[in-house]
Amino acid sequence: MDRDREPRIVVIGGGTGLAVLLKGLKRYTSQLTAVVTVSDDGGSSGRLRAEMGVLPPGDIRNCLVALAETETLMDKVFQHRFKAGGGLQGHNLGNLLLVAMSEIAGDFVSAIQEVSKVLAVRGVVLPATLEPVVLAASMKNGSTVVGETRIRNHEGKIERISLIPDKCLPVPETLLAIHEADAIVLGPGSLYTSIIPNLLVQKVTESIERARAPVIYVSNIMTEKGETDDFTAADHLQVINRHINQQLIDYMIINSGTIDETRLIRYRQEEAVPVRPAYEDIQNMGVKIIKHDLVSDDEVAWHDSDKLARAILELID
Amino acid sequence: MDRDREPRIVVIGGGTGLAVLLKGLKRYTSQLTAVVTVSDDGGSSGRLRAEMGVLPPGDIRNCLVALAETETLMDKVFQHRFKAGGGLQGHNLGNLLLVAMSEIAGDFVSAIQEVSKVLAVRGVVLPATLEPVVLAASMKNGSTVVGETRIRNHEGKIERISLIPDKCLPVPETLLAIHEADAIVLGPGSLYTSIIPNLLVQKVTESIERARAPVIYVSNIMTEKGETDDFTAADHLQVINRHINQQLIDYMIINSGTIDETRLIRYRQEEAVPVRPAYEDIQNMGVKIIKHDLVSDDEVAWHDSDKLARAILELID
Repeated sequence: MDRDREPRIVVIGGGTGLAVLLKGLKRYTSQLTAVVTVSDDGGSSGRLRAEMGVLPPGDIRNCLVALAETETLMDKVFQHRFKAGGGLQGHNLGNLLLVAMSEIAGDFVSAIQEVSKVLAVRGVVLPATLEPVVLAASMKNGSTVVGETRIRNHEGKIERISLIPDKCLPVPETLLAIHEADAIVLGPGSLYTSIIPNLLVQKVTESIERARAPVIYVSNIMTEKGETDDFTAADHLQVINRHINQQLIDYMIINSGTIDETRLIRYRQEEAVPVRPAYEDIQNMGVKIIKHDLVSDDEVAWHDSDKLARAILELID
Repeated sequence: MDRDREPRIVVIGGGTGLAVLLKGLKRYTSQLTAVVTVSDDGGSSGRLRAEMGVLPPGDIRNCLVALAETETLMDKVFQHRFKAGGGLQGHNLGNLLLVAMSEIAGDFVSAIQEVSKVLAVRGVVLPATLEPVVLAASMKNGSTVVGETRIRNHEGKIERISLIPDKCLPVPETLLAIHEADAIVLGPGSLYTSIIPNLLVQKVTESIERARAPVIYVSNIMTEKGETDDFTAADHLQVINRHINQQLIDYMIINSGTIDETRLIRYRQEEAVPVRPAYEDIQNMGVKIIKHDLVSDDEVAWHDSDKLARAILELID
């Protein structure tokens, strides 16, 4: 494909959802920018953050691997998790490589760039901010829960999520990519811990608002326990709008495929159910609905990379 | 240079000495095979060995970096040592990469090959053996000291060094490289802990004996406290011969350059002095002497990579 004619797509999110989307999109365009949350504080990322004061590299690592041009041994090495070895146990080599590269290159963005070269990454991966931000959740019952892992594991209903410190800046490349984009995609991903944190970084919503590109929100297929219990797709949308005090989203991509009973039973054990669309509520907010069967064929009820990518590409066309 | 006409050189040793030699030789030939001791049990290597049951990667790592075709950021990353981070502290990323690659590729030799590709290594680096060998020293006073680090730090005089288990095999590539070599170089490096351990691996001395290539031993410039106090170059040679029960060495390369007083004073504090040659004793053992000024210009009294490489190339010619 002629590189100049490839659509420029900015995807915003975190966690595994973003990686799934990137894996699909890279087949259709190399003009990709992934903006990734950095408020993770669990697992290997959390330990590196606590012990070394670095930004959590885990979600960035997953996006880099998703965008790696070809499946090489280096991808495997990058994702390799040490099973033994005292202080090494549970760390991914890719996380350690990103930390080492940050110390050598002097900053996290250059580190990601250098690692991108090694992995022959198709596109650009950017951290949402370079500030060491912490997530805080004001709960419906008036209490506050601090830290992404704690928020995920907390049972109560979330009223509002915020960043500490609340004044943090994006990297300039993010704003430029948004400005030049042909499409801006939010999600799929955890509503409170992957999507909204990105939008709370200063200047991000303003620049999305000013951008000429359509804003597409990919609805999650399943609810998430403790975050979005019983939420409809419209509820997700409403929560985003409430956090950014405006309605930025032009299109919402919603799964219309069915999930087999085997998977549903397993999800029910995790207290997760398919997100009901509530189409009318969405339309009443002025958002156009794009319906597709987007369910993957594997054991989870995630988005299928290619189906989702094609839905987005069709929409841009 | 035409690859087929480049001299095929096998270098045998360990530690920093071997890396210094390789850095010099790679400018003159790509047909290099480095056979490296794996009895290290100190530092990051020792911890990985103890905690994960892997072969100590440190000396191999140094040789890979020495043979890296160009100085790239990857070399720096590979040598990067974590300064903080709990269980990570003191580990080199390159060591961790070799361990991860071993787990993925399934064996240490394939891991080294894959890492060699990433670093664009000029030549082949092989572990002396794939057995988890431990060094043991029978001391002159009748006691036994087990473990490389303990042996290095022990004050007494060494009578004989041995491997536990004593029956360990080399990788087949080593024997093939020795068979095809135009020159076989021992050292420079610690006599008891880097040179001799390689020669105690089964079939190695036999195959050197059968090979048509000249065997060159590079004498150390300085004595090493606890290992070779007051040793002449001839003493080094004699100790090697005693361990392998034969005289394999054709040439001995000996430094004839002088070391300035500043460096000598510093070495004296470490109880190290220049190795006296004792030329006559060497000649009496039937070994030809090659004399050159080989001292590096930097702060240590190591071999200069290029001077040493040229001395070897001249000899082969």
